[in-house]
Amino acid sequence: MRIKITISYDGTGFCGWQRQPNGKSIQEELENAYFKFANEKVVITGSGRTDEGVHALAQVAHFDTKKVVSKKEIAVWLGAFNFHLPNGIRVKNIEIAADNFHSVASATKKTYHYDMYFGVENPLLKDRTYHIKKDLDIALTEKAAKCFIGTHDFVNFRAIGSGATTTVRTVYSCELSQMELYGSKALRFTISANGFLYKMVRIIAGSILQVGSGKLEISEIKELLTGQNNNKNEITKFNKIPAPSCGLYLESVKY
Amino acid sequence: MRIKITISYDGTGFCGWQRQPNGKSIQEELENAYFKFANEKVVITGSGRTDEGVHALAQVAHFDTKKVVSKKEIAVWLGAFNFHLPNGIRVKNIEIAADNFHSVASATKKTYHYDMYFGVENPLLKDRTYHIKKDLDIALTEKAAKCFIGTHDFVNFRAIGSGATTTVRTVYSCELSQMELYGSKALRFTISANGFLYKMVRIIAGSILQVGSGKLEISEIKELLTGQNNNKNEITKFNKIPAPSCGLYLESVKY
Repeated sequence: MRIKITISYDGTGFCGWQRQPNGKSIQEELENAYFKFANEKVVITGSGRTDEGVHALAQVAHFDTKKVVSKKEIAVWLGAFNFHLPNGIRVKNIEIAADNFHSVASATKKTYHYDMYFGVENPLLKDRTYHIKKDLDIALTEKAAKCFIGTHDFVNFRAIGSGATTTVRTVYSCELSQMELYGSKALRFTISANGFLYKMVRIIAGSILQVGSGKLEISEIKELLTGQNNNKNEITKFNKIPAPSCGLYLESVKY
Repeated sequence: MRIKITISYDGTGFCGWQRQPNGKSIQEELENAYFKFANEKVVITGSGRTDEGVHALAQVAHFDTKKVVSKKEIAVWLGAFNFHLPNGIRVKNIEIAADNFHSVASATKKTYHYDMYFGVENPLLKDRTYHIKKDLDIALTEKAAKCFIGTHDFVNFRAIGSGATTTVRTVYSCELSQMELYGSKALRFTISANGFLYKMVRIIAGSILQVGSGKLEISEIKELLTGQNNNKNEITKFNKIPAPSCGLYLESVKY
């Protein structure tokens, strides 16, 4: 049977989603927790391999069990997972999925958000929100964000290391909203797409921050979005600085 | 010279505002940090003595220095404080105050908020928001909150241990707002008053939660607010359960 789980986690202290030889990963913690109560070894596949320090409000993953469970029994698994998981990870929802459901391949829309704040360092935002020390032209940052909407070749907005066969992705929405987070003036950058390349969200966030602080021009963002000048142009050095992982949240995955 | 400082802190891991023989207090950390850069022993008086685990977005405190400093020099103190403070505490603002300014006596309005959330445990809200496991009648909770507005004798809504000379306080506003916090359905209870008795906010929050879960009647809240039946009535046992400290935030102090 194929099982679909929805997970939230505080990425602080974990080496990211994927199993690593050294370091605690979200995937390993989930697989270990499942083994503890079900006495069955499974591989849990996440919709996206979030990096070290990246958080998730609703990551989705799937795995196959040889057990036959009813809807009622599966509800008990939710409690069992959370009993065995460390404090930083919780399963929010668990359900029996169709046999052909796949957390990566079946996804139609993914949403991430990136949180930043201004002013004096805020103890309540430590490891949760990126602290912007310099002034930012918010109107310009918003304008830069809008450039990413649509279908583009994002070859200039990814880190090397992903096995993606195509670098073309469609961004459905990309916007900034001003808010207050624990008493600090904050900015949330939210982006939805049919999929993301390796470090793509953090590189886009880093790029629009470069525009907001006057280090990169909007025209340069547009040029990079043509998919041309791949790593050849001088300007790519400015947009290849990913924003720190602590501000990034995998918000939702739609199927 | 009298100095006014505004401080934010994550109360987790501290024994509260006030110096204690055992345990790290916010007050002691601030006094120690000041001594490290100014080489002067001072007593820093906070506007309210927040309990263990209670957070502050903008606590206000004052102290007296024998040094004579200019507006320019005081700005340097902000950085010096934050350099020496532990991660959980930051000075947000520092200024020279009038000689008769007093963080407690000069306060005209204080605002606290109390955060709660529902559903599965959320790792991103650990130590920051109270997790309500049972269903709550939100409309009834809102109705209960409204009862506290106005001038009342809050003798039934405080813990023993404060040296307050009068138990009469004026609540300016007391309201609930529904929101989303890190992907969880949440409720924020915000209360403003001319002052608060010991544990008063947490006892009021606890009381309205008792109403929302059907354990206390609104008529009983109203009776307790007359200041009568002080500790004599059966119902006081239900309203003397303070809501856990992790959800409480000192939001602002006005002068």
